[in-house]
Amino acid sequence: MPVPAGAAAPALDLMTRHASVRSFRSDPLPAGALDRILVAAQSAPTSSNLQAYSIIVVSEPARRERLAELCGGQAMVRECPAFLVFCPDIHRLRHVCRRQNRPFQARFLEMFLLASMDAALAAENALLAAESLGLGACFCGSIRNNPQEVIDLLRLPEGTYALTGLALGQVRRQSEIKPRLPLRAIVHREHYSDEPMEDAVAEYDRVMAETRTYDGRHVSIAGEPPAPDDRFYGWAEHTARRLTRPETIAASASLRENLRRVLEANGWSFA
Amino acid sequence: MPVPAGAAAPALDLMTRHASVRSFRSDPLPAGALDRILVAAQSAPTSSNLQAYSIIVVSEPARRERLAELCGGQAMVRECPAFLVFCPDIHRLRHVCRRQNRPFQARFLEMFLLASMDAALAAENALLAAESLGLGACFCGSIRNNPQEVIDLLRLPEGTYALTGLALGQVRRQSEIKPRLPLRAIVHREHYSDEPMEDAVAEYDRVMAETRTYDGRHVSIAGEPPAPDDRFYGWAEHTARRLTRPETIAASASLRENLRRVLEANGWSFA
Repeated sequence: MPVPAGAAAPALDLMTRHASVRSFRSDPLPAGALDRILVAAQSAPTSSNLQAYSIIVVSEPARRERLAELCGGQAMVRECPAFLVFCPDIHRLRHVCRRQNRPFQARFLEMFLLASMDAALAAENALLAAESLGLGACFCGSIRNNPQEVIDLLRLPEGTYALTGLALGQVRRQSEIKPRLPLRAIVHREHYSDEPMEDAVAEYDRVMAETRTYDGRHVSIAGEPPAPDDRFYGWAEHTARRLTRPETIAASASLRENLRRVLEANGWSFA
Repeated sequence: MPVPAGAAAPALDLMTRHASVRSFRSDPLPAGALDRILVAAQSAPTSSNLQAYSIIVVSEPARRERLAELCGGQAMVRECPAFLVFCPDIHRLRHVCRRQNRPFQARFLEMFLLASMDAALAAENALLAAESLGLGACFCGSIRNNPQEVIDLLRLPEGTYALTGLALGQVRRQSEIKPRLPLRAIVHREHYSDEPMEDAVAEYDRVMAETRTYDGRHVSIAGEPPAPDDRFYGWAEHTARRLTRPETIAASASLRENLRRVLEANGWSFA
């Protein structure tokens, strides 16, 4: 391919080699690493330069212990030496409006989405920066399992919330790269098309069942016997179970139906 | 710093050198570049491996022309040889639930947020991949200015929408790196703190006013004379104007107050 290698290759390789690491050594991060990660995070694009996010660096063991509980008991939150929490933030923008004596009027879903996207872009840069330094990293969306308790623990003011955690540390056990849906399921030319969808899903489902990805991790449904054989439990069944009947599935696969209520009580509008 | 250089440096440098390019040559992308960008995008983390997004690759000039109009007349959408549209997507997940004969129950804000974050992470990887190949790239959030028209043009099914565009191409005019808020405004240790906020905002405001970032780009407010002097128009005033009185500011700074209504009409729930 005539695409330049050289300088490009490390970044592309870094991205395509991504695998979420969930097992960390207790060693602290190398000196200087956290600052580099934070600067890389802040270099991500931000909509209209609003920079509508904050990052909480959690290092104290007791606070990580409590966060691990709030994240449904995820051991990696306890084990990793540094846990970053990416928070969409319109608190700072409200301050700027007060400072300039102009009423803050962005009380729409758009503002929530913009701030959440800003935080997500910064988080992805942080993850890649950590991996480029040889560290392991894993997003932790389960920080949304108990949104009010996380707001309280991190003293998040009105107009902020915890979108995702990012566990960082020296790798104790490397993960394997997880296969993705065939590209034709994700990418459409000129306009959306359903045509390749079922074929791609069926292919991917077979791959995930054959590689026994879900051994011991079935989502159980109340009142149903467990799936008879891991060979027939693939991505489609795992995914469908996660997205059904919230009252019957495990807390670890929570649909987080309280999120809207908690966010509205904390200064976010969804008009 | 004892942090390893070598393999790490290119990816870190790539991120910290980011500057959104808005001016493209009409040359097509180098052979192979688009595939590499798409594979990098797909390698981004995805919550619970739901892969809840799609990417529309728009190359046809007439379609880019129409999209440029819908994005408020942004010339880069017309000029760039390839425009990627990142779409949060629960349409595919609904198909998977039907396929497995399980009712799709994830009708909550959480699902909208999860899908939007998946799409944002993939988009950031695509942007970095393009930049690593020496191409220019710029996110285009103005694709949310006219969400229903974009849905129609790209034939997006229920349960999808256009979160952001990404203009890609050979750089015609390089942009400068935009200064960011002092890191102490963004990063908090152990818990959120307001203490450094005003001082950091004031410092940043001076930097942005002194570098004349907003010359010729003031957000005008109906019934007010223009700001008297660019030296006193910095980030704070520009930002406050963008976030105030939606009926008086220019469409290019729209608060997009119709987004919720359009998304609810297209299969998204925010309970």
